[in-house]
Amino acid sequence: MTDTTRCLKLARYAPEGVPDPASFELSVEAVREPGDGEVLVEVHWLSMDPFPRMCMRGEASMAPQLPLGAVMMGRGAGRVIKSRDVGFAPGDLVAGELGWRELACVKAEALRGVDASLGPLEASLGLLGPSGLTAYFATRQHAQPRAGETVVVSAAAGSVGSTACRLAALAGARVVGVGAGPRQSRYLLEEVGVTAAVDGLDAERLVAAIAAACPRGVDVFLDGVGGAVHDAVMGSLNVGARVVVYGLISSYGEGAGRADVGPRNLMRIIMKRARITGFLVGDHAAEFPHALKELGAKLADGSLVASQTVHEGLEAAPHAFATLFGDAHPGKQLVRLAAAPRNDHT
Amino acid sequence: MTDTTRCLKLARYAPEGVPDPASFELSVEAVREPGDGEVLVEVHWLSMDPFPRMCMRGEASMAPQLPLGAVMMGRGAGRVIKSRDVGFAPGDLVAGELGWRELACVKAEALRGVDASLGPLEASLGLLGPSGLTAYFATRQHAQPRAGETVVVSAAAGSVGSTACRLAALAGARVVGVGAGPRQSRYLLEEVGVTAAVDGLDAERLVAAIAAACPRGVDVFLDGVGGAVHDAVMGSLNVGARVVVYGLISSYGEGAGRADVGPRNLMRIIMKRARITGFLVGDHAAEFPHALKELGAKLADGSLVASQTVHEGLEAAPHAFATLFGDAHPGKQLVRLAAAPRNDHT
Repeated sequence: MTDTTRCLKLARYAPEGVPDPASFELSVEAVREPGDGEVLVEVHWLSMDPFPRMCMRGEASMAPQLPLGAVMMGRGAGRVIKSRDVGFAPGDLVAGELGWRELACVKAEALRGVDASLGPLEASLGLLGPSGLTAYFATRQHAQPRAGETVVVSAAAGSVGSTACRLAALAGARVVGVGAGPRQSRYLLEEVGVTAAVDGLDAERLVAAIAAACPRGVDVFLDGVGGAVHDAVMGSLNVGARVVVYGLISSYGEGAGRADVGPRNLMRIIMKRARITGFLVGDHAAEFPHALKELGAKLADGSLVASQTVHEGLEAAPHAFATLFGDAHPGKQLVRLAAAPRNDHT
Repeated sequence: MTDTTRCLKLARYAPEGVPDPASFELSVEAVREPGDGEVLVEVHWLSMDPFPRMCMRGEASMAPQLPLGAVMMGRGAGRVIKSRDVGFAPGDLVAGELGWRELACVKAEALRGVDASLGPLEASLGLLGPSGLTAYFATRQHAQPRAGETVVVSAAAGSVGSTACRLAALAGARVVGVGAGPRQSRYLLEEVGVTAAVDGLDAERLVAAIAAACPRGVDVFLDGVGGAVHDAVMGSLNVGARVVVYGLISSYGEGAGRADVGPRNLMRIIMKRARITGFLVGDHAAEFPHALKELGAKLADGSLVASQTVHEGLEAAPHAFATLFGDAHPGKQLVRLAAAPRNDHT
């Protein structure tokens, strides 16, 4: 028996700009039987994340380039159908690098088990997954905001940012969220509960808007954006400020040679005795169980919310992905695939 | 009785480039009697430091702008002549912000006492002063190089850099010094004892030269330069690298709006989980006595050397200052004034 799966393949490179949905092509491919150490997963949810944007530029960069015709990379969550690995059994819920497809035969190392007692499956891609963990370690471990400090969060309406805003507010900080467009500003003020929201798309007023929103300066800056937003916030740093960078969504769509050029801000870093820390959540893997337990408890008691926007069906992935680079609907962008049980939490 | 003093005043602004000695004008001015809390100092040594370059651009910047006709700012060391402050008595050796003049009446807060048992008076401006302390805290506290790690030091032949090189070597690190020109490279290899020297003025080969000098990548980068040298070293960072910035000599002579523009390097900072820390030595004032004792002991036992170049007489200050921004003679640039006892260490 040979199963087949629907999938989305990279049809053309997108060197610059918001990734055109026409970059992807719906296709059907055979699914191989799992070999030793492999697991066959029925994919229920796809996670839309910015990083894969860098892998489809078709030019040298710090990210590996996806070959044309390959299934688009991306994280997902689902249920194990067959397993030839001792770590997983049929019926297990898993999350990991599955690609944009409905059935995925992958190496067990690409997967982690999902503890359904902590929250719904799709939360393993957001609040109880890399996004929530990124927000958790960036805030709690690297930046450590104190009560009364001003914390600026960029991409604040997104999956990492909205959680970072909430964690900073729980620490007693004054939180300023920088979003993309008026819809995200409203969401930040009304749903996330930030003290002030700044529209990061309003480039001309950005510097003044940040300064106005942070009358006592910026003590902590949690940045997933880079570019003009980064520069504007750097201009308001206080002495002893902690800056944590975990993403550069503003430059993922720029050509490698042109990306990320601007003021280096080093004089400001010196004069303000500031610290910039670059951070990849995977380095904290040993601490994930502890962090997930805390995030799960906060999800259960309502002090954290798994904000998400659900797009329906594999065909929706290209558009959902593109919205990441514009004024996306709030929270984690998820694509629910056909096999997902309809009683899944939305 | 009214004393007079020779001094050097700022005669014209120098918006860009290496500061022209003609920017300064030799003059004679009256010295006022010390008022309450003031001290009259006979200046023996002037310290040439890069930061005041920023104060003579005559345009808005992060540094305060010196008015035309004012005595040039600068640190110095000398002997107390008269004191109306309880902290100082005639005969005391002191160092601090004295300006480019032979007699200075200043507020006592601008001065610190010099412990002559630790080393010669002029060392209080170099190894046993802000330069040595900057190297000490940048290396020991902020960067913490470990044995076998590769440490790159920029402006390595200078006062801070040469001490940072030696402290990193004492920690067992492999030290790569970036100097300005072949004379500084020779000095670094022969006198400071670095593993490899790179000529930072050779812009075209800079990236390749850094990569070649650091075959196992860069674990620690102690940077007093910024600009192209900064970018080149950032390109070779290892995972977990620590970057400490305490100066930007490459941009002090650039117009404020044009300074310090280039790659922000944020993607590299993320991918390498690197940390950049900005640092001003004054923040560590409470730890100075302990650090000076250790630096003094290392000077006495020969494991550290107070490298210095002595320029003779007040008139030599403008030229000595300009060499800081080119391929200066090695080590701390000092100007010895007429009143300095001739038995002072050179």
